[in-house]
Amino acid sequence: MLPRTPEGRASIVPSPPWHYSGDVLTIEYRTDPANVEALLPPGVALADEDPGAVAIIWADWQSCSDSLEELIDPVRSQYKEAFVVVRCAYAGEIYSRCVYIWVDKDFALARGWYQGYPKKFGSIWMTRPISVGRAGPRLGSGEVFGATLQANDRRLAEARLTLSGGSETAGFVNALPMLHSRWMPSIEKDDGDSLAELVTMRSRDVDLGPAFTGEADIRLFDAPGEELAALEPSEMIAGYWRQVGATFDGGSRLA
Amino acid sequence: MLPRTPEGRASIVPSPPWHYSGDVLTIEYRTDPANVEALLPPGVALADEDPGAVAIIWADWQSCSDSLEELIDPVRSQYKEAFVVVRCAYAGEIYSRCVYIWVDKDFALARGWYQGYPKKFGSIWMTRPISVGRAGPRLGSGEVFGATLQANDRRLAEARLTLSGGSETAGFVNALPMLHSRWMPSIEKDDGDSLAELVTMRSRDVDLGPAFTGEADIRLFDAPGEELAALEPSEMIAGYWRQVGATFDGGSRLA
Amino acid sequence: MLPRTPEGRASIVPSPPWHYSGDVLTIEYRTDPANVEALLPPGVALADEDPGAVAIIWADWQSCSDSLEELIDPVRSQYKEAFVVVRCAYAGEIYSRCVYIWVDKDFALARGWYQGYPKKFGSIWMTRPISVGRAGPRLGSGEVFGATLQANDRRLAEARLTLSGGSETAGFVNALPMLHSRWMPSIEKDDGDSLAELVTMRSRDVDLGPAFTGEADIRLFDAPGEELAALEPSEMIAGYWRQVGATFDGGSRLA
Amino acid sequence: MLPRTPEGRASIVPSPPWHYSGDVLTIEYRTDPANVEALLPPGVALADEDPGAVAIIWADWQSCSDSLEELIDPVRSQYKEAFVVVRCAYAGEIYSRCVYIWVDKDFALARGWYQGYPKKFGSIWMTRPISVGRAGPRLGSGEVFGATLQANDRRLAEARLTLSGGSETAGFVNALPMLHSRWMPSIEKDDGDSLAELVTMRSRDVDLGPAFTGEADIRLFDAPGEELAALEPSEMIAGYWRQVGATFDGGSRLA
Repeated sequence: MLPRTPEGRASIVPSPPWHYSGDVLTIEYRTDPANVEALLPPGVALADEDPGAVAIIWADWQSCSDSLEELIDPVRSQYKEAFVVVRCAYAGEIYSRCVYIWVDKDFALARGWYQGYPKKFGSIWMTRPISVGRAGPRLGSGEVFGATLQANDRRLAEARLTLSGGSETAGFVNALPMLHSRWMPSIEKDDGDSLAELVTMRSRDVDLGPAFTGEADIRLFDAPGEELAALEPSEMIAGYWRQVGATFDGGSRLA
Repeated sequence: MLPRTPEGRASIVPSPPWHYSGDVLTIEYRTDPANVEALLPPGVALADEDPGAVAIIWADWQSCSDSLEELIDPVRSQYKEAFVVVRCAYAGEIYSRCVYIWVDKDFALARGWYQGYPKKFGSIWMTRPISVGRAGPRLGSGEVFGATLQANDRRLAEARLTLSGGSETAGFVNALPMLHSRWMPSIEKDDGDSLAELVTMRSRDVDLGPAFTGEADIRLFDAPGEELAALEPSEMIAGYWRQVGATFDGGSRLA
Repeated sequence: MLPRTPEGRASIVPSPPWHYSGDVLTIEYRTDPANVEALLPPGVALADEDPGAVAIIWADWQSCSDSLEELIDPVRSQYKEAFVVVRCAYAGEIYSRCVYIWVDKDFALARGWYQGYPKKFGSIWMTRPISVGRAGPRLGSGEVFGATLQANDRRLAEARLTLSGGSETAGFVNALPMLHSRWMPSIEKDDGDSLAELVTMRSRDVDLGPAFTGEADIRLFDAPGEELAALEPSEMIAGYWRQVGATFDGGSRLA
Repeated sequence: MLPRTPEGRASIVPSPPWHYSGDVLTIEYRTDPANVEALLPPGVALADEDPGAVAIIWADWQSCSDSLEELIDPVRSQYKEAFVVVRCAYAGEIYSRCVYIWVDKDFALARGWYQGYPKKFGSIWMTRPISVGRAGPRLGSGEVFGATLQANDRRLAEARLTLSGGSETAGFVNALPMLHSRWMPSIEKDDGDSLAELVTMRSRDVDLGPAFTGEADIRLFDAPGEELAALEPSEMIAGYWRQVGATFDGGSRLA
């Protein structure tokens, strides 16, 4: 990645593989499928089943390269993100696709651009479960978690999850291989894209903690420079909380 | 606290009690006792035993008032801090005393000023233990944690803790009731202090997770506007990691 | 101020005098005087004339102590603030009084607490006038300035000022000596305040640039932990822009 | 740019042209030309004259698209950056080339990646000249400006400029058309780059304020994840301060 330097250690992000361990809070709901379709690029179609399903996911990650060196300088390994996933169909397969995402560190933004996640900057917060004291929910029935997203000094989303118990899964919208677009417009005016790829990737070495589910609520707020609020919920599905570990080590170019 | 408003809900911090749950990483070492003595106010003396002992503590807290409402708007409940504790003697008792502290939220700063913690702003990071995946240490022998502190765009401290196993305690320097000074200079020039109190406090409802100990290393860096580096280590003692829950509900004025 | 240290250079803010130079955008309007009265402490009354007048002021400051050393380490000298001023009567005099204020640096927050400004943290932005290029307004008729305030990841206020021409003044609400309260509650529960002073101060060595005025608009947004939106405008007065230099060097205790 | 959405207004940055107005502080010095050469990609050579010349530039910008709408929501128009420029030769022409750059807003980072500026995030501060009061330098002989850069909680650079008087130019290192590389590695492992272009661009509608020059000093600090300190000064040239307005409206692909 950039910048390219004599020793290679100034890159905004070191080379993959990249390892992740973190807390993931997922809110699933349905919107009018037309809202999803409007976000898909040419050649990519709505999923046949439940085409209006949306997942908005908050994650608090610790991540590192194979050197592990970022882990003891945690300003370079910890970050939070909030992202929106829909499903779609391409060449006979069903994929998950990230349509919006906000992160709070530059190395995470750069990894996203590399992978086709359309990352912007935001301020992301999510309640943490606790095991001592009183300042937080426990991972059990009736406990409540909140999550918020702000960008450019406006709150864009806030969610609430009230746990009802354990769960087999942590949702279905973000459970498929990702289908992402890597785009970079030409430096010449009116000259289209210099990079326009359709890629797919999925994590390896996935290591999941126990999943919890419950009733979810979400509010989206409009803002200049954002279109997130157009994905308005017509029906809530559920919310989930789970710890997730995974490794990313490259993907495949489809087109 | 300020501001005082019709409904009382705009205060920088709601009224106590305040509940805390978080991760606490403690590094203990010895410095020349003269360095500690230079930080004590008149009438407060060095502790008789081990007078040069210092604890530098990183904490990642979730906190709330009795309403618990901050927990679901976590931008108002989560914060990190790094602080320096020494021991001292006053009126025949031995106390812990915080001589420097940096936090990253205004509500935490205001609580500190109320309690006599001399809080300033900083950027604080500490490695988190994980239970899934590969991006972090586990709570076990040989695992390594890092912690850093930055203020005014300069790194002030970085620490490393390599766990060797479980521990009965999480250190001794920060284990006593606190002896703090609440100072506010007069608005009139050359008129001394309008507020100058010596207060003591200790937490209640302390709820401790398992403690871990290991070999610790710390580096302090000099900076304009800081004197932390004067507390240079002459001998490392140990490091500790533990989850801590506690409630603060007021203290006592001693003088 | 805190912390008090051997060399005195670790204080969150150096000793006064403090010098300020900056851009100041003022929006004046009227609200129901009952909204102002509700913010005044006992013994302080509404002003007789125009008691519902409010000024919301955005300022982008460079500031320093007498050493001037902060000026070449500008992370320690530059800050922005947004604050709300009303007028009030005390002991037969009319004063200006700051009822809400948000800043973005800790040294500025500490100075505010010392002076009786009820400072909290926020993110403050204001359009800058330009003299080259096209990316901004000039200081002339028809040019438009914006200003925004965010705290705890919610936008609290946004203002717009369209200049119509030069002005003799930059408003009247913030033009009087300040009447502020310095409050610190007791560390003991249910024991009132340890510090409760009424103080007054005014700047010296005031050095004003040309003033500009124009039509103003302001929107206030409600938020948990804030009561700013209660000061809703019933009638706009005007807006102003001016560069201001001043020195603060202490005040007087009135009660 | 990303994300691509139904209304096109959620893009991390609107379409060019982009207009800029701001303050620019430039520090020029010489390093061992081998340090510059090590940063040039294959096919790009050192400049014949003064090949070790380096400019480190701090800029405080206000910027906008043709809609100008960002100007009244200044969180979306103001940003600061610090960047390092060298000169180089390609196909018989001499160019300026940015080898490192740090910015503090995501829209600026995205514009940079589009243009071939290898942008990362940092905290950038520079002294502002004043025209009222005492808290800053004036634009005149003997006045001193500071500038600093921090990333990942470590200070990377600090500079000082003492003005001696007016100047015809604001330096020569950053005065040529830019020669930049736009790189994006393949999503497939060990598969080289999906995008690897050499592009050139220069601003139009350049509108310059009076230039000032003086004696300059710079210090670079090493850090993990950075190689800036390798560009160590062997000889200072001079420093400059100037207000600059310009418009970017696309470039040309060279290879």
